[in-house]
Amino acid sequence: MANYVFGVDVGGTTVKLGLFDISGNLLEKWEIPTRTENGGVNILPDVAASVQAKMEEKAIERDDVAGVGIGAPGPVDGRGIIHKAVNLGWSEMNLKKELSELLGGMQVEGGNDANVAALGEMWKGGGQGHKDLVAVTLGTGVGGGIIINGKVVTGCNGSGGEIGHIHVEDNETEECGCGNFGCLEEYASATGITRLANRQLKACDKDSVLRQGEVSAKTVFDAVKAGDELAIEVAKQFGEYLGKGLGVIAGVVNPEVFVIGGGVSKAGEVLFDYIRPPFERTVFHGCKETKFVLATLGNDAGIYGAAKLVLE
Amino acid sequence: MANYVFGVDVGGTTVKLGLFDISGNLLEKWEIPTRTENGGVNILPDVAASVQAKMEEKAIERDDVAGVGIGAPGPVDGRGIIHKAVNLGWSEMNLKKELSELLGGMQVEGGNDANVAALGEMWKGGGQGHKDLVAVTLGTGVGGGIIINGKVVTGCNGSGGEIGHIHVEDNETEECGCGNFGCLEEYASATGITRLANRQLKACDKDSVLRQGEVSAKTVFDAVKAGDELAIEVAKQFGEYLGKGLGVIAGVVNPEVFVIGGGVSKAGEVLFDYIRPPFERTVFHGCKETKFVLATLGNDAGIYGAAKLVLE
Repeated sequence: MANYVFGVDVGGTTVKLGLFDISGNLLEKWEIPTRTENGGVNILPDVAASVQAKMEEKAIERDDVAGVGIGAPGPVDGRGIIHKAVNLGWSEMNLKKELSELLGGMQVEGGNDANVAALGEMWKGGGQGHKDLVAVTLGTGVGGGIIINGKVVTGCNGSGGEIGHIHVEDNETEECGCGNFGCLEEYASATGITRLANRQLKACDKDSVLRQGEVSAKTVFDAVKAGDELAIEVAKQFGEYLGKGLGVIAGVVNPEVFVIGGGVSKAGEVLFDYIRPPFERTVFHGCKETKFVLATLGNDAGIYGAAKLVLE
Repeated sequence: MANYVFGVDVGGTTVKLGLFDISGNLLEKWEIPTRTENGGVNILPDVAASVQAKMEEKAIERDDVAGVGIGAPGPVDGRGIIHKAVNLGWSEMNLKKELSELLGGMQVEGGNDANVAALGEMWKGGGQGHKDLVAVTLGTGVGGGIIINGKVVTGCNGSGGEIGHIHVEDNETEECGCGNFGCLEEYASATGITRLANRQLKACDKDSVLRQGEVSAKTVFDAVKAGDELAIEVAKQFGEYLGKGLGVIAGVVNPEVFVIGGGVSKAGEVLFDYIRPPFERTVFHGCKETKFVLATLGNDAGIYGAAKLVLE
């Protein structure tokens, strides 16, 4: 029986790699640059070379590695094929097959980065002990991962858990990155919170610390904690969109817990003060008790979840 | 190996029963009254007696029956326990255990009626050939069943697929049966369509055939087919709510197909003319091609799906 497993999280700038024992203890983590030029043709060979170099360095035998899990930004279907990873330059790539061949037939499992991070949080993070959970990543965008009975819901073409693009506002005039108008991401991401704050600053002339410096998700929630009324109004708007959106998701898949991560979640549990009231007001009564917890693995959620893909 | 399986669908007025061969051919179906008095204490014994009488009548041996599947109106968890089936008088009932004991230890599987109907449509109805589907029942209320990888999503406490109660309207003043305001059911059910039509009739003085008789989901869609402008406006409102709601669901679980059933679906494919445009306008781009089909099993979906529960 193998003692080790690798987890790989491919981002647009760097690839994060982790070496784990099969109990899920992170033994070592490191990064390599993501070479996106030439259609990203070097990315998987770079990953394979880095994994093999680490095995050599640590004198780990091939038979002692259970496999390599890999998460990447784009829809990944059940066969491990990623479709349209625009940030990496890939059009279509069979993660599982290509990386396995580069590693001499080693077991490889692949998944969407947000889904894989959700799996990581379930395994070793804020969602530990649960098997029905929804992970929500509030970063530059809004990502999501739906886990039911311990398994990620990829959906029929890898679009499962795309909760940043659920429609929550009919009257939006600014286009979302996806081409639609009124997606959750336009209000609940870091950039979305900044958008809401800038709009609120324009809409009224109320005094606020936000008028005296940078407006960001961080400064908004710092101001909320300091009792700034305008910032609190922005937090309420954010909470209305996100709370109602998560209420709909709860009525569909009825998770035990929402695990909230990403840069915005650094604001801490104060987020729940604004998410929970609209959630409870609008959600199906059978789901009102759904728990909210903070993610705990930060940027490592992806490598943890990728490693877990292999061990499932 | 057994040759037969029973499917049972417990409703508030009648219990439907079906005898199937294990390939899913319906050999015979019949009904018995649902005796809801005394906390519904007679319901399961009546079901057991009816199953046993049918076995005797057909000279079917105990060993030749794979089991009995049963669907009932209320949240059913993974252990087969139904919580709060108000229409039946039950507070909490272990469907699987109680009915199995009444049948001398025969295998019994239980599920929520809407979820079980979804399974029936996947097995032998409009969703045949698919394993990721969402069934939507537009009846007196709006029910739903989410099937992922061939399995019903019950959720952590049996509230999975409660899509009639996803929040779709912030400005509703009439309370939904569930106690919330602005649930999908308030606009997309038969009673919801009637509500929208009555409001539209009051809101304008446009001529319409709906002013000259009964206003119902059926008369509204008959009028739509006849080109009645006011009815078409009502159908557009219905389609906006339902199309956008299903768009959100698609972004969460990314099904291959929506199977639309229930009394309202008798209007036929004209429904899709009103559901698809708002769906496509608002859904995540990876889900725009999601198919819409009509359910085909009608009131028999429940007994088919219940039988399938046993064969999974």
